[in-house]
Amino acid sequence: MIEVECQIAIKKEGNCFLNLIKTELLNEIIQCGSLSGAAKKLKISYQHAWTMIDEMNHIAPEPLVIKQRGGVNGGGAKISSYGMQILNEYKLIEAQVKKLMSQINVDINL
Amino acid sequence: MIEVECQIAIKKEGNCFLNLIKTELLNEIIQCGSLSGAAKKLKISYQHAWTMIDEMNHIAPEPLVIKQRGGVNGGGAKISSYGMQILNEYKLIEAQVKKLMSQINVDINL
Repeated sequence: MIEVECQIAIKKEGNCFLNLIKTELLNEIIQCGSLSGAAKKLKISYQHAWTMIDEMNHIAPEPLVIKQRGGVNGGGAKISSYGMQILNEYKLIEAQVKKLMSQINVDINL
Repeated sequence: MIEVECQIAIKKEGNCFLNLIKTELLNEIIQCGSLSGAAKKLKISYQHAWTMIDEMNHIAPEPLVIKQRGGVNGGGAKISSYGMQILNEYKLIEAQVKKLMSQINVDINL
Protein backbone atom coordinates (compact mmCIF):
# COMPACT_ATOMS: atom_id res chain seq x y z
CA MET A 1 0.00 0.00 0.00
CA ILE A 2 1.33 3.41 -1.04
CA GLU A 3 0.93 6.17 1.50
CA VAL A 4 2.05 9.77 1.76
CA GLU A 5 3.29 11.07 5.10
CA CYS A 6 4.39 14.50 6.22
CA GLN A 7 6.87 15.32 8.93
CA ILE A 8 6.37 18.69 10.55
CA ALA A 9 9.36 20.78 11.63
CA ILE A 10 9.11 24.10 13.45
CA LYS A 11 12.17 26.19 12.75
CA LYS A 12 13.72 29.43 13.90
CA GLU A 13 15.96 30.99 11.27
CA GLY A 14 16.29 27.66 9.52
CA ASN A 15 17.11 25.60 12.64
CA CYS A 16 14.55 23.02 13.68
CA PHE A 17 13.60 23.12 17.35
CA LEU A 18 10.39 21.08 17.29
CA ASN A 19 9.41 17.90 15.46
CA LEU A 20 7.45 14.75 16.23
CA ILE A 21 9.96 13.08 18.58
CA LYS A 22 10.52 16.36 20.46
CA THR A 23 6.78 16.88 21.00
CA GLU A 24 6.59 13.29 22.27
CA LEU A 25 9.38 14.10 24.72
CA LEU A 26 7.59 17.26 25.90
CA ASN A 27 4.32 15.35 26.33
CA GLU A 28 6.07 12.65 28.36
CA ILE A 29 7.65 15.30 30.58
CA ILE A 30 4.13 16.62 31.25
CA GLN A 31 2.98 13.07 32.11
CA CYS A 32 6.01 12.07 34.22
CA GLY A 33 7.13 15.41 35.66
CA SER A 34 10.77 14.45 35.12
CA LEU A 35 13.24 14.13 32.29
CA SER A 36 14.48 10.71 33.44
CA GLY A 37 10.90 9.35 33.55
CA ALA A 38 10.18 10.75 30.08
CA ALA A 39 13.40 9.28 28.65
CA LYS A 40 12.55 5.86 30.13
CA LYS A 41 9.05 5.99 28.63
CA LEU A 42 10.42 6.83 25.17
CA LYS A 43 13.19 4.21 25.52
CA ILE A 44 15.94 6.74 24.89
CA SER A 45 18.91 7.54 27.13
CA TYR A 46 18.75 10.37 29.67
CA GLN A 47 21.69 11.93 27.82
CA HIS A 48 19.80 11.83 24.50
CA ALA A 49 16.69 13.37 26.09
CA TRP A 50 18.83 16.05 27.74
CA THR A 51 20.55 16.87 24.41
CA MET A 52 17.15 17.26 22.71
CA ILE A 53 15.91 19.59 25.46
CA ASP A 54 19.11 21.60 25.37
CA GLU A 55 18.77 22.00 21.58
CA MET A 56 15.10 23.05 21.84
CA ASN A 57 15.77 25.51 24.66
CA HIS A 58 18.67 27.14 22.82
CA ILE A 59 17.08 27.41 19.37
CA ALA A 60 13.53 28.40 20.37
CA PRO A 61 12.84 32.08 21.13
CA GLU A 62 12.20 31.07 24.78
CA PRO A 63 13.03 27.89 26.74
CA LEU A 64 10.40 25.16 26.39
CA VAL A 65 11.50 23.12 29.40
CA ILE A 66 12.43 24.34 32.88
CA LYS A 67 14.64 22.06 34.97
CA GLN A 68 13.78 22.04 38.67
CA ARG A 69 16.41 21.23 41.27
CA GLY A 70 15.87 19.44 44.58
CA GLY A 71 12.64 17.85 45.85
CA VAL A 72 11.89 14.26 46.91
CA ASN A 73 12.90 12.70 43.58
CA GLY A 74 16.04 14.82 43.15
CA GLY A 75 14.57 17.42 40.82
CA GLY A 76 12.15 17.36 37.95
CA ALA A 77 11.35 19.12 34.73
CA LYS A 78 8.34 21.10 33.64
CA ILE A 79 7.16 22.71 30.45
CA SER A 80 7.25 26.52 30.34
CA SER A 81 4.14 28.46 29.35
CA TYR A 82 5.80 29.14 25.98
CA GLY A 83 6.38 25.37 25.70
CA MET A 84 2.68 24.71 26.35
CA GLN A 85 1.71 27.34 23.78
CA ILE A 86 3.95 25.82 21.12
CA LEU A 87 2.72 22.30 21.90
CA ASN A 88 -0.85 23.47 21.35
CA GLU A 89 0.13 25.21 18.13
CA TYR A 90 1.88 22.00 16.96
CA LYS A 91 -1.30 19.99 17.63
CA LEU A 92 -3.36 22.40 15.51
CA ILE A 93 -0.82 22.23 12.67
CA GLU A 94 -0.69 18.42 12.96
CA ALA A 95 -4.49 18.22 12.66
CA GLN A 96 -4.45 20.34 9.49
CA VAL A 97 -1.59 18.33 7.97
CA LYS A 98 -3.32 15.03 8.83
CA LYS A 99 -6.53 16.26 7.19
CA LEU A 100 -4.65 17.17 4.00
CA MET A 101 -2.75 13.85 4.06
CA SER A 102 -5.94 11.83 4.32
CA GLN A 103 -7.40 13.72 1.34
CA ILE A 104 -4.18 13.11 -0.63
CA ASN A 105 -4.11 9.44 0.34
CA VAL A 106 -7.65 8.99 -0.97
CA ASP A 107 -6.84 10.72 -4.27
CA ILE A 108 -3.39 9.19 -4.82
CA ASN A 109 -3.02 7.07 -7.91
CA LEU A 110 0.23 5.16 -7.76
CA MET B 1 11.56 34.17 12.43
CA ILE B 2 9.49 31.11 13.27
CA GLU B 3 8.50 28.96 10.31
CA VAL B 4 6.75 25.64 9.90
CA GLU B 5 8.04 23.20 7.29
CA CYS B 6 6.78 19.84 6.15
CA GLN B 7 8.85 17.01 4.72
CA ILE B 8 6.95 14.72 2.39
CA ALA B 9 7.67 10.98 2.40
CA ILE B 10 6.05 8.49 0.03
CA LYS B 11 6.01 5.06 1.59
CA LYS B 12 5.17 1.51 0.64
CA GLU B 13 4.16 -0.60 3.62
CA GLY B 14 5.85 1.85 5.96
CA ASN B 15 9.15 2.07 4.04
CA CYS B 16 9.97 5.43 2.49
CA PHE B 17 11.02 5.30 -1.15
CA LEU B 18 10.59 8.94 -2.13
CA ASN B 19 11.41 12.19 -0.33
CA LEU B 20 12.84 15.59 -1.26
CA ILE B 21 16.47 14.54 -1.86
CA LYS B 22 15.37 11.50 -3.88
CA THR B 23 13.13 13.61 -6.14
CA GLU B 24 16.09 15.99 -6.61
CA LEU B 25 18.21 13.01 -7.66
CA LEU B 26 15.54 11.82 -10.13
CA ASN B 27 15.21 15.32 -11.60
CA GLU B 28 18.98 15.59 -12.03
CA ILE B 29 19.04 12.20 -13.77
CA ILE B 30 16.44 13.58 -16.22
CA GLN B 31 18.64 16.66 -16.79
CA CYS B 32 21.98 14.85 -17.04
CA GLY B 33 20.96 11.45 -18.45
CA SER B 34 23.43 9.73 -16.15
CA LEU B 35 23.77 8.80 -12.50
CA SER B 36 27.35 10.09 -12.28
CA GLY B 37 26.32 13.49 -13.72
CA ALA B 38 23.38 13.71 -11.31
CA ALA B 39 25.58 12.78 -8.31
CA LYS B 40 28.12 15.45 -9.31
CA LYS B 41 25.40 18.08 -9.60
CA LEU B 42 24.02 17.24 -6.13
CA LYS B 43 27.56 17.08 -4.66
CA ILE B 44 27.07 13.54 -3.38
CA SER B 45 29.21 10.49 -4.15
CA TYR B 46 28.29 8.14 -7.00
CA GLN B 47 28.04 5.39 -4.38
CA HIS B 48 25.54 7.41 -2.31
CA ALA B 49 23.45 8.18 -5.40
CA TRP B 50 23.54 4.52 -6.40
CA THR B 51 22.44 3.42 -2.91
CA MET B 52 19.49 5.83 -3.02
CA ILE B 53 18.42 4.54 -6.46
CA ASP B 54 18.80 0.94 -5.33
CA GLU B 55 16.62 1.65 -2.28
CA MET B 56 13.95 3.42 -4.36
CA ASN B 57 13.88 0.69 -7.01
CA HIS B 58 13.58 -2.08 -4.42
CA ILE B 59 10.94 -0.49 -2.20
CA ALA B 60 8.70 1.08 -4.87
CA PRO B 61 6.09 -1.13 -6.57
CA GLU B 62 8.07 -0.72 -9.83
CA PRO B 63 11.62 0.51 -10.53
CA LEU B 64 11.88 4.29 -10.86
CA VAL B 65 15.27 4.34 -12.59
CA ILE B 66 16.53 2.15 -15.44
CA LYS B 67 20.29 1.80 -15.79
CA GLN B 68 21.48 1.64 -19.40
CA ARG B 69 24.71 -0.10 -20.33
CA GLY B 70 27.10 0.88 -23.13
CA GLY B 71 26.93 3.97 -25.35
CA VAL B 72 29.47 6.74 -25.91
CA ASN B 73 29.65 7.78 -22.25
CA GLY B 74 29.75 4.24 -20.90
CA GLY B 75 26.08 3.89 -20.02
CA GLY B 76 23.47 6.18 -18.58
CA ALA B 77 20.35 6.16 -16.48
CA LYS B 78 16.79 7.09 -17.29
CA ILE B 79 13.57 7.43 -15.36
CA SER B 80 10.95 4.75 -15.99
CA SER B 81 7.40 5.75 -16.92
CA TYR B 82 6.35 4.80 -13.37
CA GLY B 83 9.15 7.07 -12.11
CA MET B 84 7.82 9.96 -14.22
CA GLN B 85 4.29 9.32 -12.95
CA ILE B 86 5.40 9.35 -9.30
CA LEU B 87 7.50 12.50 -9.83
CA ASN B 88 4.44 14.27 -11.21
CA GLU B 89 2.33 13.02 -8.30
CA TYR B 90 5.01 14.27 -5.85
CA LYS B 91 4.91 17.73 -7.48
CA LEU B 92 1.13 17.91 -7.03
CA ILE B 93 1.41 16.83 -3.38
CA GLU B 94 4.24 19.32 -2.80
CA ALA B 95 2.10 22.15 -4.21
CA GLN B 96 -0.77 21.27 -1.85
CA VAL B 97 1.55 21.00 1.16
CA LYS B 98 3.26 24.31 0.29
CA LYS B 99 -0.14 26.01 0.02
CA LEU B 100 -1.14 24.71 3.46
CA MET B 101 2.24 25.68 4.93
CA SER B 102 1.97 29.24 3.66
CA GLN B 103 -1.51 29.54 5.23
CA ILE B 104 -0.15 28.12 8.52
CA ASN B 105 2.88 30.42 8.44
CA VAL B 106 0.60 33.44 8.06
CA ASP B 107 -1.62 32.35 10.96
CA ILE B 108 1.13 31.13 13.30
CA ASN B 109 1.43 32.99 16.55
CA LEU B 110 4.68 32.03 18.26
